Amino acid sequence: MSKSNTQFQGIITYPITPFLPNGEIDLKTLNQLIEQLISNGSHAIAPLGSTGESAYLNDEEWTEVAQTSIKAVAKRLPVIVGVSDLTTANAVKRAKIAEKAGADAIMVLPVSYWKLSNDEIFSHYAKIADAVSLPIMVYNNPATSGIDMSPEFIVQMFKSIDNVTMVKESTGDIQRMHKIRLLANNELPFYNGSNPLALEAFAAGASGWCTAAPNIIPQWPMKLYQAFQNNDLPLARDLFYKQLPLLEFILKGGLPTTIKAGLKLKGLNVGSPRLPLQPLDEAGTKKLETLLESLHKTQ
Amino acid sequence: MSKSNTQFQGIITYPITPFLPNGEIDLKTLNQLIEQLISNGSHAIAPLGSTGESAYLNDEEWTEVAQTSIKAVAKRLPVIVGVSDLTTANAVKRAKIAEKAGADAIMVLPVSYWKLSNDEIFSHYAKIADAVSLPIMVYNNPATSGIDMSPEFIVQMFKSIDNVTMVKESTGDIQRMHKIRLLANNELPFYNGSNPLALEAFAAGASGWCTAAPNIIPQWPMKLYQAFQNNDLPLARDLFYKQLPLLEFILKGGLPTTIKAGLKLKGLNVGSPRLPLQPLDEAGTKKLETLLESLHKTQ
Amino acid sequence: MSKSNTQFQGIITYPITPFLPNGEIDLKTLNQLIEQLISNGSHAIAPLGSTGESAYLNDEEWTEVAQTSIKAVAKRLPVIVGVSDLTTANAVKRAKIAEKAGADAIMVLPVSYWKLSNDEIFSHYAKIADAVSLPIMVYNNPATSGIDMSPEFIVQMFKSIDNVTMVKESTGDIQRMHKIRLLANNELPFYNGSNPLALEAFAAGASGWCTAAPNIIPQWPMKLYQAFQNNDLPLARDLFYKQLPLLEFILKGGLPTTIKAGLKLKGLNVGSPRLPLQPLDEAGTKKLETLLESLHKTQ
Amino acid sequence: MSKSNTQFQGIITYPITPFLPNGEIDLKTLNQLIEQLISNGSHAIAPLGSTGESAYLNDEEWTEVAQTSIKAVAKRLPVIVGVSDLTTANAVKRAKIAEKAGADAIMVLPVSYWKLSNDEIFSHYAKIADAVSLPIMVYNNPATSGIDMSPEFIVQMFKSIDNVTMVKESTGDIQRMHKIRLLANNELPFYNGSNPLALEAFAAGASGWCTAAPNIIPQWPMKLYQAFQNNDLPLARDLFYKQLPLLEFILKGGLPTTIKAGLKLKGLNVGSPRLPLQPLDEAGTKKLETLLESLHKTQ
Repeated sequence: MSKSNTQFQGIITYPITPFLPNGEIDLKTLNQLIEQLISNGSHAIAPLGSTGESAYLNDEEWTEVAQTSIKAVAKRLPVIVGVSDLTTANAVKRAKIAEKAGADAIMVLPVSYWKLSNDEIFSHYAKIADAVSLPIMVYNNPATSGIDMSPEFIVQMFKSIDNVTMVKESTGDIQRMHKIRLLANNELPFYNGSNPLALEAFAAGASGWCTAAPNIIPQWPMKLYQAFQNNDLPLARDLFYKQLPLLEFILKGGLPTTIKAGLKLKGLNVGSPRLPLQPLDEAGTKKLETLLESLHKTQ
Repeated sequence: MSKSNTQFQGIITYPITPFLPNGEIDLKTLNQLIEQLISNGSHAIAPLGSTGESAYLNDEEWTEVAQTSIKAVAKRLPVIVGVSDLTTANAVKRAKIAEKAGADAIMVLPVSYWKLSNDEIFSHYAKIADAVSLPIMVYNNPATSGIDMSPEFIVQMFKSIDNVTMVKESTGDIQRMHKIRLLANNELPFYNGSNPLALEAFAAGASGWCTAAPNIIPQWPMKLYQAFQNNDLPLARDLFYKQLPLLEFILKGGLPTTIKAGLKLKGLNVGSPRLPLQPLDEAGTKKLETLLESLHKTQ
Repeated sequence: MSKSNTQFQGIITYPITPFLPNGEIDLKTLNQLIEQLISNGSHAIAPLGSTGESAYLNDEEWTEVAQTSIKAVAKRLPVIVGVSDLTTANAVKRAKIAEKAGADAIMVLPVSYWKLSNDEIFSHYAKIADAVSLPIMVYNNPATSGIDMSPEFIVQMFKSIDNVTMVKESTGDIQRMHKIRLLANNELPFYNGSNPLALEAFAAGASGWCTAAPNIIPQWPMKLYQAFQNNDLPLARDLFYKQLPLLEFILKGGLPTTIKAGLKLKGLNVGSPRLPLQPLDEAGTKKLETLLESLHKTQ
Repeated sequence: MSKSNTQFQGIITYPITPFLPNGEIDLKTLNQLIEQLISNGSHAIAPLGSTGESAYLNDEEWTEVAQTSIKAVAKRLPVIVGVSDLTTANAVKRAKIAEKAGADAIMVLPVSYWKLSNDEIFSHYAKIADAVSLPIMVYNNPATSGIDMSPEFIVQMFKSIDNVTMVKESTGDIQRMHKIRLLANNELPFYNGSNPLALEAFAAGASGWCTAAPNIIPQWPMKLYQAFQNNDLPLARDLFYKQLPLLEFILKGGLPTTIKAGLKLKGLNVGSPRLPLQPLDEAGTKKLETLLESLHKTQ
């Protein structure tokens, strides 16, 4: 596979997974949400990420969301499916399901209970890569996964495993992006997964921003990206500082929790996150409403 | 429920979960292992803990191990079953299965993908407690679970939820035990889950030591506990420092990985841990063999 | 004092303090170094910072360096003098000496042995501010000082103490700069003190870069700043990544140690840092030489 | 020097340094305080430690306190003098002054502004050791000094530098003591410098407890030590938990601040700590009074 053809640019949006009151997946609303995300300008769709509560779904549910999402996008945009699971066997199984359903790429986070050695992580990725011919986005997010992959290790996987063509860095540490760029001679595209780092990641040369924010404020991330495309840093800075309070709020409150509350405020009832995660409380909802209104006024 | 009748003392042993070469649970070897643990003097058996790779089993496998273990112990010792799961619904389901199968208590670790607020953790425990009438051991182990419960919060749950009668502290921070004891007026028994803290935890008044070590060096933890029962601190200190290098080794290498290697060295083939976890490598196995031999000579 | 007149822009350079072989201050070389820094384009000079080994000088030496530096600059550029000391009394004394000698501003780092409460830090700054009428640059650098001031606290000092007009942030955490800007309504100019954050700090709106790098690679920081002045982000990014390996090297090796080695390589013998700090070892010097040559070729 | 003759046992007490209202050292009260500490049963006296505000004294003051303290003890107990300073030259100078004044040992903390490499720390200790023939207590306290020495490094200094005969560990991490004991074959005596770890440090085999607590609750640390001498762990545990709230309070509030407040409550006016350190506030003083009264009643 030529690595250069398997990369994405811009705003990569992470849809939430809607639930019905009885706890089942709400496929109709999922379709509706994806339609909105596409019409609002996302450059790619990434179902079953952290925001999509992938970790809280059983195998049947996971498959249902993957297939439905890919079908809903219908090749209008690239689809990157999160296939992470605690066991290698199940991650491989999910990768195959995603490929068969028509995914354009898969994203893999090395979830842990027991800490993994680099050898164990490498072998996990290699086995998934062997099982499919899709490009793989390596996803580093120690805050949720309990595993922290160094830039050195990530670049080593990029050089050793054919399918590994992209990396999503969610530590929020800009120095990781610097190291990845220098170590890989600027040949490994990196994507920012930390919302409050959006401005600096683009300044440092990120290829895209992986974010759930377009679920509720679609135009703001797009405009920020556009300002960078136009080499207009003062505008980008201004746009960033305006949306920053909301970006911090959704991160701090947990993305499924806050994004679902925001969608409800905007009129799309996507249900609650799955227990033990609880819906955003009243004070938080009020705060979120104020933040959304303030952005609505200034846009 | 009278809280005072629902507590355990001494060495609480965590069996590994044996696998066959085809990856299935090896129930025959599980029975054999439990028989060994009982005859070697453990004071309680705790299947499906971190050591038991509970997080890597599917629901059917989990149930099989729970039922088999309880049946194997056959009321000769108390059995504490780990029922942790990422979703509240599944943890509740497991608690009910454990109760029906005859468990004496359940252990609950609040596993996370998204960080949980104290309200969310409290509600998780409360829902499990409501579903069964078994005593609950609260389990704090941020290194594997990603969630850290403060002594203040743990004691608050002890005071508010009837079934919560014990706490297993695995941070390795002795000050947590001090705080729990002071905050609960010495009414909440605490158990040490950090092997290299065994000496000091007993010195600080721990009711027991939750450990996988008896799988491979059964007599050493028992002797240490006995020395404390006899108020013989110099002997306890001597016994502790002798076993400490092995305790550090099994912790650092990951308990399923190192304990399975140790059992194989001692002649019981329990298979490998489940991928992405890999078996102990050759150098590690050699080191473990030396440590075991050294303890065998000095005992 | 009108706060808007008391702020600086651009590259603020931190000279090292040269020593003679007998351990005394080498005033002649200090004059020569400052002359170089001015002719190479620095926008301000900041003697007696971390780089200047201020913490390792006795009171007489400190005074000598302050007076000599101010006299050497001779009003051609603004001079910001570091007046930090462990006791409030001595910091006040140094502030007065700096003012009398003609400093344009002072920089204050709240050094600690015992941790300080916010009240104690506030009072330390207030007493220094009362003693002089110079603008004060608050300096946050927990890695060297052992004290970490939150953005909230820094902005509170800015609002409460007249002379406090600037903040130098050296944590390397870009989110601190975001918070300072939002909390102070963009009225408190912030300066970046972490070399490997130079690109992103300017992207985020920093007023200047406080750095020792111009001692040895004067043109590179200036060009980076100029690219931002010209709103040419692609050029700025390119310039940044080229100098980044050297910026990381001088930070990791300790600024007095590496900068003194670099000046020697460039032909200015400034002596060794003061014990217990040791001169850069041979391998490090070789590495530094390679980094300098590589930058010399590409400029 | 035979290492075995140069070690101390039991409760090593750290006197505060009293100040007069005009800020000068109050030598008369210092004499009085030392007299109290001796008559209350301390096993050694350690002036000019962290508690003694050594870091906040100028050279003349430091010398005055060293000489006065040694003279006041008058060979009735061993005296360990803290000679730490930021520069090697000044630490050497202080070591010589201490030796000339009759100290029995010196304590050295490697204070930092710039982080030190192990080579730099080793050389710092070696130069001090060369300058005197007193035994040296290595002092590890990263929270105040900014430098953390690993057990491996400390044991290496013990093996390589003749005068290094003892180590005071103040990280509060019991595993450090385990490692020191194992690495040094139990030949390097370790002393606990973290008050809330007193119980477990003695359980783990510490030779002594370095503490400021005897300034205000002299009998409690002595009784705890005595219980361990009598191999009465249940009594030691009981005594420890009773004094623990006070030990935590004085640590958390800063030792000079809280101990000076406590001495004043007990009728000895020792003045305030030196600015920027402030005296204990009213609420803190009330809390301290309650803790002292509660201990007075139960003793």
